[in-house]
Amino acid sequence: MPEAAFPDQLLQLLDSHVSVRSFTGEPIAAGALERLVRAAQRAPTDATGQLYSFIRVRDRGLRDEVARLSADLEQMRTASELLVVCLDAHRIERLLAHRGEELGMRPLVALLFGITDAALAAQNLVVAAEAMGLGTCYIGALQNHAPEVARLLQLPQRVVPLWGLCIGVPKERAPTKPRLPIGLVLHEDRYREPTPGELDAAYAIMAKATRSGDWLNPIKKYFARGGHMGEREETLAELLRQQGLAP
Amino acid sequence: MPEAAFPDQLLQLLDSHVSVRSFTGEPIAAGALERLVRAAQRAPTDATGQLYSFIRVRDRGLRDEVARLSADLEQMRTASELLVVCLDAHRIERLLAHRGEELGMRPLVALLFGITDAALAAQNLVVAAEAMGLGTCYIGALQNHAPEVARLLQLPQRVVPLWGLCIGVPKERAPTKPRLPIGLVLHEDRYREPTPGELDAAYAIMAKATRSGDWLNPIKKYFARGGHMGEREETLAELLRQQGLAP
Repeated sequence: MPEAAFPDQLLQLLDSHVSVRSFTGEPIAAGALERLVRAAQRAPTDATGQLYSFIRVRDRGLRDEVARLSADLEQMRTASELLVVCLDAHRIERLLAHRGEELGMRPLVALLFGITDAALAAQNLVVAAEAMGLGTCYIGALQNHAPEVARLLQLPQRVVPLWGLCIGVPKERAPTKPRLPIGLVLHEDRYREPTPGELDAAYAIMAKATRSGDWLNPIKKYFARGGHMGEREETLAELLRQQGLAP
Repeated sequence: MPEAAFPDQLLQLLDSHVSVRSFTGEPIAAGALERLVRAAQRAPTDATGQLYSFIRVRDRGLRDEVARLSADLEQMRTASELLVVCLDAHRIERLLAHRGEELGMRPLVALLFGITDAALAAQNLVVAAEAMGLGTCYIGALQNHAPEVARLLQLPQRVVPLWGLCIGVPKERAPTKPRLPIGLVLHEDRYREPTPGELDAAYAIMAKATRSGDWLNPIKKYFARGGHMGEREETLAELLRQQGLAP
């Protein structure tokens, strides 16, 4: 069978994405991490701002601490590399100060453009890593105790840890997870409300992403009243106050 | 010369990224946009939340309006497709309500996880589009009058327009822009402050991204006191109040 052309290979790579939650622990090739960060740096960034930093957690004790503060996930212990991806509005402030200028960007805009820059760069890194046969996993649970993570990593004012990012050699690969029907995500000219039938169809498709067979269970656990996302609000508010980016 | 292997081709693709600011206007192939959105949907998303929506702006008059509200950029008028990428915490609220549950996620967390989901999905789309030979351009200037854009697109509460995204056949391709030295972006174990010499080196490298030969000009225009990013703060605060996500 002839090999697929590059665009098809890439679409297949994106389609086959799964977050990897168990790694062999083998180190990745020398120079690979730097190559991945260079790929990340090529991502688009508004006004050449590059409002992000990667903290590569190499020290074993430090990594255990960060893992412990993030729900103690196996993938954080077994990954070859653990990065903490940060919004960084401090470096641009230093660059401006170096030439006698003051930062004029304020918290909400720093959050919007900083999270965007960090996410675009991180996703470039993830796609590049997967093309090399590596596995990755973003760690949103870093938000559970992010003020402590910021202190551990000695992040200055206006640098905010957003997520962990595990990179390594996959030990096992789960099947891909379903996604919402495209009609709920892609709208034409104006926002279109889903019909009750479409909501039922969404639950039916997303059921395959769950162990229980009912998608309500995970989305309730995270997004409903009393769920994890609600619990994270106060911690995130504290983090932003601590790092000088409270809106 | 033998063709490069897939991982090298992908790294070359990422390395050669430029935002395209002039398109031929030719339509993209039938089905291509849907294929790109499906690639976007495969991006990682915390807790299967998929907190984003794409509004495909097809109506010509509507597109002109959105362009006019975003600094009237040529690429918004000549692109084959213009998407408005939105944070969407409304759909998960509807899904929960459909099963008798209330949304518990509050504004700051909705911003962090929603912007992240939207950016990861959009960047998958951008990489896939570039692999197909198309050009793309994110439009941060959509933030200049985003409350009006939200009304035009009839976005419900908890849906927030983040950026425009132009997709089309490139008319011309600018040279790639430089990026900061990797040592300023990748830190080991703890945040490392740049030295004055490193700041000078950053300006020297980034000068190639400018017409004037001094990177201070663009970063001052955007990020310093009196710059565009500062001006956007009040508008973004108004947008978040209007859309029910004020922190």
